[in-house]
Amino acid sequence: MTGRAIRLKRRPVGLPSDDDWDLTTDDVGEPGEGQALVEVHYVSLDPAMRGWISEAASYRKPVEVGGVMDAIAVGRVVASGDERFAEGDHVMGLLGVQEYALAPANGLQKIDPDVAPLPKWLGVLGMPGMTAYFGLVEIGKPQPGQTVVVSGAAGAVGSLVGQIAKLQGARAVGIAGGPEKCRYITEELGFDAAIDYKNQDVPSALREACPDRIDVYFDNVGGAILDAALAQLAFHARVVICGAISQYNSTEPMRGPANYMSLLVNNATMTGFLVFHYASRYAEAAQQMGEWVATGKLKSREDVEPGIERFPEVFRKLFEGTNDGKLVLAVRE
Amino acid sequence: MTGRAIRLKRRPVGLPSDDDWDLTTDDVGEPGEGQALVEVHYVSLDPAMRGWISEAASYRKPVEVGGVMDAIAVGRVVASGDERFAEGDHVMGLLGVQEYALAPANGLQKIDPDVAPLPKWLGVLGMPGMTAYFGLVEIGKPQPGQTVVVSGAAGAVGSLVGQIAKLQGARAVGIAGGPEKCRYITEELGFDAAIDYKNQDVPSALREACPDRIDVYFDNVGGAILDAALAQLAFHARVVICGAISQYNSTEPMRGPANYMSLLVNNATMTGFLVFHYASRYAEAAQQMGEWVATGKLKSREDVEPGIERFPEVFRKLFEGTNDGKLVLAVRE
Repeated sequence: MTGRAIRLKRRPVGLPSDDDWDLTTDDVGEPGEGQALVEVHYVSLDPAMRGWISEAASYRKPVEVGGVMDAIAVGRVVASGDERFAEGDHVMGLLGVQEYALAPANGLQKIDPDVAPLPKWLGVLGMPGMTAYFGLVEIGKPQPGQTVVVSGAAGAVGSLVGQIAKLQGARAVGIAGGPEKCRYITEELGFDAAIDYKNQDVPSALREACPDRIDVYFDNVGGAILDAALAQLAFHARVVICGAISQYNSTEPMRGPANYMSLLVNNATMTGFLVFHYASRYAEAAQQMGEWVATGKLKSREDVEPGIERFPEVFRKLFEGTNDGKLVLAVRE
Repeated sequence: MTGRAIRLKRRPVGLPSDDDWDLTTDDVGEPGEGQALVEVHYVSLDPAMRGWISEAASYRKPVEVGGVMDAIAVGRVVASGDERFAEGDHVMGLLGVQEYALAPANGLQKIDPDVAPLPKWLGVLGMPGMTAYFGLVEIGKPQPGQTVVVSGAAGAVGSLVGQIAKLQGARAVGIAGGPEKCRYITEELGFDAAIDYKNQDVPSALREACPDRIDVYFDNVGGAILDAALAQLAFHARVVICGAISQYNSTEPMRGPANYMSLLVNNATMTGFLVFHYASRYAEAAQQMGEWVATGKLKSREDVEPGIERFPEVFRKLFEGTNDGKLVLAVRE
């Protein structure tokens, strides 16, 4: 049996182009002891994956040139060499952008497609959900009546951050690109206000939307928007550093937050995190998130794009901001 | 009665020059109800004062052009309109760079010259002492065996931070300019290691001095040294933002810490503070610091420069790094 896979052809400079990837067809192999063979159904496309293909040291070993592109994905076990998994089980794990994955059973987690459709296991019930939950609840710690601002507010993580902020009794202000995204987060998700960074002056819009300044700023973008938020912090504010998508494809040196001295004036804190730091507590968050989803308190939408061969162009949607909800690649018809 | 005063003639661009100041002689006046007339003896010169004369909004109203330069100082009450103070009392407060200050009694604090000579009340027992204490103990929270790095390590605050770190059982590594300052902090103050940023490559020297990386980084300088420290953080590190002296006279836009994403990878925190945020707890810190000073566990030295008329050149020593200990201006012979 053979399967197709997306491999890294060379390290991209700036925004990854079509020519940075290869589509190959390879023998799938048989699962050995402690392995499972998984038929991959949906692949999660996340901004952090841009860092995984850079040579620069980060929190993980970069994907090797010639190697299958890493990705979190969901699929169905078709053969198992481990007693914990049987044929037909649905699982999530770091399966890669490929049609079949031979994966160590230790890295797999069973999921129930009756609880939610598979793509949602890559969004609200998966890493983006865990990221929003722990970043906001554990680091941001919004109190009732406080103001929470989130950038990338229509994205997989940001859209959940604002909704969780509301569930905690806080005000939620989202920064997103374009009127349609702004309408979505206020009218459909219940954010109190939206700022369209493509058409508004962010510093003055923030002043208007946050008359009591910003108690929690959850940053997914970095750059000028991070600086604008820093300039409006309230006393004892918490800044949560989750990502910096505005910088990931930059060929210029990384831009640091020039307004960081606002932390000093406001006795404020800026804290970074990776969701993996909270791995031991995923169950706790999954239970809470699942309950909110089941009771309709937490909404999410997924942008499911078909075709493994379209990976290069679909991945770029993240950085062009043209995805409409959590971006997922459907590997099979 | 008349007294001399240093007044701000115009807002400096870059490093304040002699021409940015006026020395005037003015009538002193009589203390009204709730005021005291204080004969100023020693004036504290601190890096933060550079911010007080900038137009840019900060944590306080800037000194007005034409106004007496603000400064914390110690002196002796010569006439009092408030029952809490009597002639002959020694006091500390925001008295300004002048020979006599008519000050609201509410802003004055009695000090005891028998406990320590007056200049030490502007250093280890004053704001720099409080700053080092609360910044390190309350924000940095070093644990025994952890590594604390401090920049501006031979300065009024930094020299205390390293010593307090040692008293808490941590390793202390100081970054200072020049071999004499490095010798001072290791041989006289007991730091475990010193890095001479003028003659060493800070990133590689930090790697060598901190084999287990940096648990607490106490930053007084900002700029390239802050970035170097961020690149070497340990997991769960705490970065304490106390100042950014490298940036205060810059005529370029503020430089933000480009390596701030290290906070994310290391689940680390960057927290700013002003010592005034801890005003309600000064007594607690003063008692602890006084005990350490009395038992010889905390050493300090003061660089006492005579002559109110020399204020402009003496103030610049802070930014040239040529002061030798806590910089103090002696206003009277």
